[in-house]
Amino acid sequence: MSKVSVLFGGASFEHEISIVSAISLKKVLGDNIAHFLFLDGGHHLYLIPADKMQAKVFATGEYKQCKQLEWILGGLCYKGLFGSKRLTDVGVVLSLIHGGDGEDGVISSVLEFYKLPFIAPRVAACALSFNKILTKNYAAHIGVKTLPYEHYRYGDDVRCSFVYPFIVKPATLGSSIGVSVVEQQGDMEYALDSAFSYDREILIEPFYKGVREYNLAGYKNAQGELVFSMVEEPKKTELLSFDDKYLDFSRTTQAKQASIDKELESKLQEAFKRIYGDMFAGALIRCDFFVIDDEIYLNEINPIPGSMAHYLFEDFGSHIQALSQALPKSKPIKITYNYVQKIRAAKGK
Amino acid sequence: MSKVSVLFGGASFEHEISIVSAISLKKVLGDNIAHFLFLDGGHHLYLIPADKMQAKVFATGEYKQCKQLEWILGGLCYKGLFGSKRLTDVGVVLSLIHGGDGEDGVISSVLEFYKLPFIAPRVAACALSFNKILTKNYAAHIGVKTLPYEHYRYGDDVRCSFVYPFIVKPATLGSSIGVSVVEQQGDMEYALDSAFSYDREILIEPFYKGVREYNLAGYKNAQGELVFSMVEEPKKTELLSFDDKYLDFSRTTQAKQASIDKELESKLQEAFKRIYGDMFAGALIRCDFFVIDDEIYLNEINPIPGSMAHYLFEDFGSHIQALSQALPKSKPIKITYNYVQKIRAAKGK
Repeated sequence: MSKVSVLFGGASFEHEISIVSAISLKKVLGDNIAHFLFLDGGHHLYLIPADKMQAKVFATGEYKQCKQLEWILGGLCYKGLFGSKRLTDVGVVLSLIHGGDGEDGVISSVLEFYKLPFIAPRVAACALSFNKILTKNYAAHIGVKTLPYEHYRYGDDVRCSFVYPFIVKPATLGSSIGVSVVEQQGDMEYALDSAFSYDREILIEPFYKGVREYNLAGYKNAQGELVFSMVEEPKKTELLSFDDKYLDFSRTTQAKQASIDKELESKLQEAFKRIYGDMFAGALIRCDFFVIDDEIYLNEINPIPGSMAHYLFEDFGSHIQALSQALPKSKPIKITYNYVQKIRAAKGK
Repeated sequence: MSKVSVLFGGASFEHEISIVSAISLKKVLGDNIAHFLFLDGGHHLYLIPADKMQAKVFATGEYKQCKQLEWILGGLCYKGLFGSKRLTDVGVVLSLIHGGDGEDGVISSVLEFYKLPFIAPRVAACALSFNKILTKNYAAHIGVKTLPYEHYRYGDDVRCSFVYPFIVKPATLGSSIGVSVVEQQGDMEYALDSAFSYDREILIEPFYKGVREYNLAGYKNAQGELVFSMVEEPKKTELLSFDDKYLDFSRTTQAKQASIDKELESKLQEAFKRIYGDMFAGALIRCDFFVIDDEIYLNEINPIPGSMAHYLFEDFGSHIQALSQALPKSKPIKITYNYVQKIRAAKGK
């Protein structure tokens, strides 16, 4: 089996979630992981030995004693005694950088720029799943329903026309950060302050108490077929707090298949397939759906789900292996300088 | 005046256009340019002295004798006699990398990753203007009309329902590459082959002969006000070929204001304002509009227009100066490790 190197951390509100994700994944993928690559909040990259993959190494800053890495075309290098040395056996980089930096497309772009093969959505897919408004535009285009919403910018006079309760979200974060349920007028000020403290744009959606919610993950293999995970019905709480979700990210045990009928399962898979399209090639994503009056609504796309949603799959290692074989290749671009020559001729110089 | 460094080239079908753009901009901005930074087709970066900014230096490969640069946090460096040296006075990087690499968000991400201040759309804005289908989704969302279209993937049975003539375009390139007008059934095979040779997704739109077309550029200044260029009515040809557009990119003379009334001008500005929103902060973009039956349609967003559309502005240097003062700043993210600590407590280790 070819190995993967797990890239985690990042300058993101979800930095710590990413660390927990990586630690969980270590337990699941074990020896299939070649290297752990930690990006700190200042964008310095470190090589973390497997036995140092413990929360306290990051919390105490001990990671700074690890080898520092630099990006080079086609790989990574570190300073050795006699100049720069290339880090060997990097294999495919699996990006676990959640939230800003990872999911906004910056890290995917850096990996693409340096020509490292990687598991993560490509830049356009990141951009449109990171921004919930772009997600809704995209979903409408591919014919998948999302909840109705109102969209406000910082400074707007917010006059929400939904009946209580509704939910207020920053336009661009994940993991429930800055999200509040508004039950009554009195909750509104806090909800707006909280959402706007993370983003200049927010959206408001109706909140359906006890709505049926289903999570489904998947990826496209080298044969161009979608491979689906089981469907999970996440545990019901009012709203998962950041802490709840956070603990959720450290799951290492297998989920249970939701007790739903075949028809609903194929409807969820059909919606997933439309969303994944060619857009998410190279990524394993998790889509979270609501079911309201037998209609399926996309709630959100997790382009880099917590601990890669490994708990929804059996034999997760084999899926990572299959996905590693299905990474999109950029078309080689031939630069001929024909046109530059033509211009010189046209301009007579 | 603070200076800019012009970044150009890139692994893109528009690589040569970018070189021509940079040479034109040199004539316009003169001493306001600190450095010329050339990214070759293999992603190697070179420092090009101003007197070497000639087409033949690139066409002959002579550029490879120039100093090679590396990206470092907060700047660029090169190898000196006694180790790495930081390139001084980089100032604000102005990205002129058109098409793939530049406009798809990869270069903006690299600039963001390394924390260099830059003039160009941020990653989400790149992604949505690079892909014409995402542009249409976005335009619909902000209430700006675009032409009707059909969307096909490679391998689809293409049964276009528009009457002739119509126009076939790859979903993601600029500068008319791979674009054809189909006048009759016989033109179709070539048009599809051509578009699909550049992209796995294409779109087809009706083609309006002699349609009124207007270009308008602009940016948001530090006061949050939009600064508009003059409106230009581009010269009419059937369809600008790549060669025509290419020559267009080497313009160094001022355009003429289109003879339109104030009402149409404000309608165009209003549409531009909606498109620019907060999304394009930090960029100077050009929007190309059609006017059909007094309605305005967005044709395309040029997120990094050829030679920065300098020819639509008077005293272009002062506008670049103003834009340099208006670059979006990322929110600092404080990483506290509170949650990692909490998890360790919850898990009792």
